[in-house]
Amino acid sequence: MLSYRIGILGGGQLGLMLLQAAVDWNLDIHVLDPDAEAPCKQIAPHFRQGSLQDFDTVYDFGKDLDVITIEIEKVNVDALEKLEKEGKKIYPQPSVIRKIQDKRIQKQFYLDNNLPTSDFILTENREEVSNHISFLPAFHKLGKDGYDGRGVQRIASAEDIPKAFDQPGLLEKAVDFDKELAVLVARNSAGETATFPTVEMVFHPELNLVEYLFAPAEINAQVNAKAQEIAVKTAEAFQIVGLLAVELFLTKDGEVLINEVAPRPHNSGHHTIRANATSQYEQHWRAILGLPLGSTQAYGPSAMVNLLGEDGFQGPAVYEGMEKLLAQEQVFPFLYWKKQTKPFRKMGHITIMDNSLSALKEKVEFVKNNIRVISTESKH
Amino acid sequence: MLSYRIGILGGGQLGLMLLQAAVDWNLDIHVLDPDAEAPCKQIAPHFRQGSLQDFDTVYDFGKDLDVITIEIEKVNVDALEKLEKEGKKIYPQPSVIRKIQDKRIQKQFYLDNNLPTSDFILTENREEVSNHISFLPAFHKLGKDGYDGRGVQRIASAEDIPKAFDQPGLLEKAVDFDKELAVLVARNSAGETATFPTVEMVFHPELNLVEYLFAPAEINAQVNAKAQEIAVKTAEAFQIVGLLAVELFLTKDGEVLINEVAPRPHNSGHHTIRANATSQYEQHWRAILGLPLGSTQAYGPSAMVNLLGEDGFQGPAVYEGMEKLLAQEQVFPFLYWKKQTKPFRKMGHITIMDNSLSALKEKVEFVKNNIRVISTESKH
Repeated sequence: MLSYRIGILGGGQLGLMLLQAAVDWNLDIHVLDPDAEAPCKQIAPHFRQGSLQDFDTVYDFGKDLDVITIEIEKVNVDALEKLEKEGKKIYPQPSVIRKIQDKRIQKQFYLDNNLPTSDFILTENREEVSNHISFLPAFHKLGKDGYDGRGVQRIASAEDIPKAFDQPGLLEKAVDFDKELAVLVARNSAGETATFPTVEMVFHPELNLVEYLFAPAEINAQVNAKAQEIAVKTAEAFQIVGLLAVELFLTKDGEVLINEVAPRPHNSGHHTIRANATSQYEQHWRAILGLPLGSTQAYGPSAMVNLLGEDGFQGPAVYEGMEKLLAQEQVFPFLYWKKQTKPFRKMGHITIMDNSLSALKEKVEFVKNNIRVISTESKH
Repeated sequence: MLSYRIGILGGGQLGLMLLQAAVDWNLDIHVLDPDAEAPCKQIAPHFRQGSLQDFDTVYDFGKDLDVITIEIEKVNVDALEKLEKEGKKIYPQPSVIRKIQDKRIQKQFYLDNNLPTSDFILTENREEVSNHISFLPAFHKLGKDGYDGRGVQRIASAEDIPKAFDQPGLLEKAVDFDKELAVLVARNSAGETATFPTVEMVFHPELNLVEYLFAPAEINAQVNAKAQEIAVKTAEAFQIVGLLAVELFLTKDGEVLINEVAPRPHNSGHHTIRANATSQYEQHWRAILGLPLGSTQAYGPSAMVNLLGEDGFQGPAVYEGMEKLLAQEQVFPFLYWKKQTKPFRKMGHITIMDNSLSALKEKVEFVKNNIRVISTESKH
């Protein structure tokens, strides 16, 4: 297993945490990222600067490697398909990436596979959105390239139509949900699957970003079983090899619906580095290298707070309050090796462990009030 | 804290695990090691090949850094003292390294500080050893440069005198011990200390090397309190800043005696990466960077098996049985990025977690019987 030459498309924080987990097995990893100062740069055994979306760059990067994976979906899938045809192991498979890259195909896939998801209508442009006033309130989502809150607009009524995208997208019925959940599932090439405990995500009131999450989710056993089952079924429907993060809505009626999925390590699993026997990152390696999956057992309740660049600051990052956090019992900051901060940029995360959900939530408040990523330079 | 330029003298497995722990805080680390293929090479942000014992090399390496630490004691302390005088933070302090480098001074230090240790006699050469027949059975230890079982000879009777070293050393009364224990203690610059749970080490019957260890040790509360107290007192006596590994004998009379210490992360603490809230590696960073120490709480009983190069093989390393280990619940192999194996070389370790000591010991047996580091080439 050690002699594989492995590539990761993308050198951001997910790649960084994949590299950290790979140290245990001395994996020979090559990273491709367009940014010469990407988070992975400092510790990648091999780092190459280049576009993830350019056919030749991706093909050239992959042609001398044995196994290639991704930490971001926005990559040139044509090049990956060619590499796959030439015998490289590409996990997740290009066919899976292609389906998930386009939210329109992704949604249709759930429908075709009897996987529960909210109602939707495909739209080609803004005008088409205006033909579906009776479907509102809904979210208009760009088919491709949405990320971290970009590419999603809430269309409450006809008045909001100008906010809709004038590109291929989908109009998704607004779900009257009680909670947002996520289940990480890994599937290896032998078809073995393993899920992590269900997490509950609390979103930032304005940004479409997870503010914090905790595990296990505060849900009853029946809902939990449903969430776990849907995650496994989804992974099996895709026949994915690797990790799949399945984001779910728990509706006020107790229904569990798929919101969207990501075929890679995910923001909803950072806490597993500290809190679980096997982290999502190690699990991803196990899955794509054809190894037995690891135990996902949690050592206790945990929470994860995303550390975002403070609004109003843009420039070299300064982390205020790190020492206060480190003085707290079982509060573990993780920074993403990003030199520059900007408003709401994901700069790191903080994992918290404690014995109860109430104790976790107190620490979440402490963390939110005591750390800031600012800069000596302001935004304007 | 992030802007420090940090150096590690030594790029072996302890350095590798220090680097892995440093990823969370994006520490800017420079590594010096004489071996161009040292374990740290692949993931160190900066790596320099050079002697650890040459004054100019060490001074030159350190002169543009802010904080310097070690992962091996055999370094040029004169250069570190000069750097310390010039205002660099050198942790552990050169004065501590100097005392510990020489087992003769180390032993005398315990005596001077009322720290319990076995009786000993300083010897200048082999002839002096032969003057102390009545002191036998004893161990003859080289004052300097002993490491991983080298530099220690058992002298049971006059017949063994030819095995004694003809260099400055010490004759140490053989302790009739029941168990060998170790306590890792960290001390930061504020004088705060924190200990890890006491571990029990089981030595290889022939090699003077830990075969496996487990934590917590199987000892009563009184012995445990004594071991923990001695470790803290020893760290305070040295006034060390950083980690101190304190190896102890538990005698058949229930006495706890210091065997020897190491001023750095240690083989007896590898399991803390998986089993404890804060690993020994993160704790070392916290201690030397003037940060609050982390919780050493264990998430459950654990064991650690050293993975040694199989006797009879020397050459490019091949790991047999990795997959079998990974298929076991909570069995975590960690490899040291060493391309070449040789008989009994430390090639990695395996951490095991389970709910009981008996379950751990079963897994230890499984691990010992199912993994081998061999080579396509034989020893001769």
